[in-house]
Amino acid sequence: MINFTVGPVQSSEEICRIGAEQVPYFRTSEFSSLMKENEKLILQFAKADEKSKAIFLTGSGTAAMEATVINLLTSKDKVLIINGGSFGQRFVNICSVHNIPYTEIKLERGKDISEDQLKEYEGKNYTALLVNVHETSTGVHYDINLISEFCKRNNLLFIVDAISSFLADELDVSKLQIDVMITSSQKALACPPGISILVISEKAEKLIYENDPHSLYLDLKDALKNAERGQTPFTPAVGILIQINARLKEIEHKGGIEKEIEKTAELAEDFRKKIKGLPFEIESDSLSNAVTPIHPITNSAYKIFEILKDEYGIWVCPNGGDMSDYMFRVGHIGNLTKEDNSKLVDAFLDLQKRGII
Amino acid sequence: MINFTVGPVQSSEEICRIGAEQVPYFRTSEFSSLMKENEKLILQFAKADEKSKAIFLTGSGTAAMEATVINLLTSKDKVLIINGGSFGQRFVNICSVHNIPYTEIKLERGKDISEDQLKEYEGKNYTALLVNVHETSTGVHYDINLISEFCKRNNLLFIVDAISSFLADELDVSKLQIDVMITSSQKALACPPGISILVISEKAEKLIYENDPHSLYLDLKDALKNAERGQTPFTPAVGILIQINARLKEIEHKGGIEKEIEKTAELAEDFRKKIKGLPFEIESDSLSNAVTPIHPITNSAYKIFEILKDEYGIWVCPNGGDMSDYMFRVGHIGNLTKEDNSKLVDAFLDLQKRGII
Repeated sequence: MINFTVGPVQSSEEICRIGAEQVPYFRTSEFSSLMKENEKLILQFAKADEKSKAIFLTGSGTAAMEATVINLLTSKDKVLIINGGSFGQRFVNICSVHNIPYTEIKLERGKDISEDQLKEYEGKNYTALLVNVHETSTGVHYDINLISEFCKRNNLLFIVDAISSFLADELDVSKLQIDVMITSSQKALACPPGISILVISEKAEKLIYENDPHSLYLDLKDALKNAERGQTPFTPAVGILIQINARLKEIEHKGGIEKEIEKTAELAEDFRKKIKGLPFEIESDSLSNAVTPIHPITNSAYKIFEILKDEYGIWVCPNGGDMSDYMFRVGHIGNLTKEDNSKLVDAFLDLQKRGII
Repeated sequence: MINFTVGPVQSSEEICRIGAEQVPYFRTSEFSSLMKENEKLILQFAKADEKSKAIFLTGSGTAAMEATVINLLTSKDKVLIINGGSFGQRFVNICSVHNIPYTEIKLERGKDISEDQLKEYEGKNYTALLVNVHETSTGVHYDINLISEFCKRNNLLFIVDAISSFLADELDVSKLQIDVMITSSQKALACPPGISILVISEKAEKLIYENDPHSLYLDLKDALKNAERGQTPFTPAVGILIQINARLKEIEHKGGIEKEIEKTAELAEDFRKKIKGLPFEIESDSLSNAVTPIHPITNSAYKIFEILKDEYGIWVCPNGGDMSDYMFRVGHIGNLTKEDNSKLVDAFLDLQKRGII
């Protein structure tokens, strides 16, 4: 199978090779050193300042999103949530479950946020802003500079889910003054799913120590204290953390974060060029390098996903719920090449020949 | 390295081989079938009745412990917690964080619970009992029949953390009327860490649908609903779930749960026989097949752990906190053999010759 989904994605040979190794015992100085190295490289690639910290949670991205909300926000906050799809909605649901007062800025499917839309919320005593910089469900990559400037002017705590964008799109945590940046192992990190990562500013760290998250597993104080010695409060997904270590070093050796983003951007551009002329619409205002969202005009998106899977050995990424017939997505993260793009486009051309699209 | 810790433990060749494979996309009928098979085999090995359900959470065992508490208990409950070590204490901490009223039955280190100790709590309107059937920190395997009878007489919801005991010691969920049984991927399941599993009785399922856990990630309603179609609410540790599938089938093909327990029991017995005469004390009232807790009389337990790691290529399992000099543990779960036991005992004999123990 060739995997064009947005996670889990394809891993490099080296990452797969490590997957075959026995998982070592981890309450050791050896594992602590590896974890400290993971933290250093994540902070480096996020361009976070030297007072920032990284936390590695064993859980899905949603665990990290919820941990962020409950450790940093309380019922005294007044939160703005940019909601342009199912991951924006997830932040809404998390705030709702935990009784955090919020206002949603609902965006139309496929639309970026505009200066005008934000203006309405200027100077209104909001305390924090939550955004999924790449709304993975619709493939919209928001104007993060615009949002960052808004947060700076209004002195908002700035929380950014960059789960499917980190390492694929430019993101300068320090310059944008992001207080919490969230990502996961199975996106552009191209490791198996199971680990989520938080990059935490000094300001966010202080808030974590002031708050009571009412959770043991998601208590970031505990995670921060353990991280000082390169450990975690509970048995983590050790194997995946070792794979992450190799992958971070792989990125560094290949020229660093800029090269990695460039590679993904080229792959995305190559694909978008190759599908011109096919009966597809791309409805996104602003694309991430990570994904191309495709609305097929002539057949159900889910049907196309199924045929590609069963007859061509290719996974594209179906959408869920009421979007399932409308849209599928093609990922450009993970260990993919331009030749893989060509194979997918050949399959599309064949579907066209067969009258399926 | 030979790994005698209690997790992560050594995996079979087949499990390692799967670790090297690309992790597939999972919102597919193929992955749903695999998950349904995982559920079926877990329920079968737990001897749970046909109305029971299994849930697979991406997280450490503590995530499953906390999920159980917040989905099944409320501030209206009156909970008994058997606390004989750091995992009993973890249940105490979880109940405390969530304001669940509880009484601890504190046990001395190494001691099993007695009928007399339980008598005091008979007919006192408790609503639930929490126990770690194998208190992994001290290696005490509690008299689960005694506790089960107490729960039946007092009509208590019976919650059993069997994280390090499931597949190593006999446990009949149906006969013991256990409402929630918890285990994890990295113990006797001998897969990498990252997945925790809950076996849920019909009674427990009803309670889950009645309660509000105030968490999105750990909401078991959502997990149960998704599990009906063999899915999870959020991206799970797909690779580990595939390894669990292979491992469960491996156990089945090798003669099932009885054979697996027998193998572990033999390994434990072999080890305990071989260390007779060494300057070690075993202070546990009642041993699990999974672990032998060792108090070395002539040197620091942590020192011995370090020397075995650095000079003999062997991991035993150190204890944390104030137990670290007092005790280390030797695990009998995972892919170990009697020859491995001999290698460890040879190392002990060499330490004796060198005057270290």
